[in-house]
Amino acid sequence: MHSPLKHIAESTVRRLSLYLRFLEEFEARGQSTVSSGELARSGGTTSAQVRKDLSFFGSFGKRGLGYDVKDLIASIREILGLEHPWPVVIIGAGKIGAALAQYRGFTSRGFHVVGVYDSDPAKVGNALGALQVRALTDLEADIAQHHPRIAVLAVPAEAAQPIVDRVVAAGLRAILSFAPAPLLVPAGVTLRAVNMATELEILAYSLTHAE
Amino acid sequence: MHSPLKHIAESTVRRLSLYLRFLEEFEARGQSTVSSGELARSGGTTSAQVRKDLSFFGSFGKRGLGYDVKDLIASIREILGLEHPWPVVIIGAGKIGAALAQYRGFTSRGFHVVGVYDSDPAKVGNALGALQVRALTDLEADIAQHHPRIAVLAVPAEAAQPIVDRVVAAGLRAILSFAPAPLLVPAGVTLRAVNMATELEILAYSLTHAE
Repeated sequence: MHSPLKHIAESTVRRLSLYLRFLEEFEARGQSTVSSGELARSGGTTSAQVRKDLSFFGSFGKRGLGYDVKDLIASIREILGLEHPWPVVIIGAGKIGAALAQYRGFTSRGFHVVGVYDSDPAKVGNALGALQVRALTDLEADIAQHHPRIAVLAVPAEAAQPIVDRVVAAGLRAILSFAPAPLLVPAGVTLRAVNMATELEILAYSLTHAE
Repeated sequence: MHSPLKHIAESTVRRLSLYLRFLEEFEARGQSTVSSGELARSGGTTSAQVRKDLSFFGSFGKRGLGYDVKDLIASIREILGLEHPWPVVIIGAGKIGAALAQYRGFTSRGFHVVGVYDSDPAKVGNALGALQVRALTDLEADIAQHHPRIAVLAVPAEAAQPIVDRVVAAGLRAILSFAPAPLLVPAGVTLRAVNMATELEILAYSLTHAE
């Protein structure tokens, strides 16, 4: 079933991630079926959108009966590729990197932080939960040994592109960057960037121009 | 000049924020003019896009001479509403909230954290840089006294909507949420959400379907 799914929009993937979160809450509360309307209300969208999003992946649910919560969870997890855990390395053990390394929201979704790296000798060896910060010089050898699949960058802007180049050269194909810099990756590598200062600047713009 | 700017796309605002970052680097290096091509290369876009983005705001730069770095910084800062500092409150003093409260990337862009709040008595009073965590019950009185303009939420999913409702009732009109939950705000309030687990799930999807 995978090949026809390559071209679904990122916005759809984003909503599936959100539906999954609600379905898991429904499951935790003991609810066994859910209607598209309930999912839509949780996700701030419409039942038509929910049905359309899920229709990409075959026929779930029965008219009038709704969706089986456990089945839909399993299907969305399969679609997103979450049936197996994803090992993650975090590069940068400053405040943001250290917080991410211990963020339970990652582990609970199957993302396991297997290494945290910093170039600052004063940070190397520091404990972050069950991990110890490792020297950035260990990165390539560790990647070769432990095969992480995703690199999370929490480094200053000027350090970011050289580190992207290193993790790509070491074979990683997925990067989430918190560095306030635009980054270039070769074809076949997926890069996502979260820039917190930019988010605040968009808010500042909206406040300024709302007045 | 403000009213015609209300409808520029968020993607344009996002690029302006990025251009500003590079212009400030150019300024720090002592560079006094910059071409649209240089800005484009820094920002991973095209010169035509740079010229189009800047043309919304009047006529900057001279053909063949490029843009004056200091002038363009001042203009973009005015456009984004960054000529004055923005007081920010952070709600949630867990790992992510505590890291955000001490994130220098905010202060350097004019976002000043004036208060950090948590409902957990064990966290209240803890020092985060120059601030002490305050009780969430102090929030409304503090907002009335200090007039923060932006609330950053770093709270669990189930706590997020009630806190959004409280900050909106207290008069705030801009919210940046790191809570993994969809949130509803009334018209006139701008909400932006960063969901780190969703970002990783989009990467997991891309890795799964690239194979």
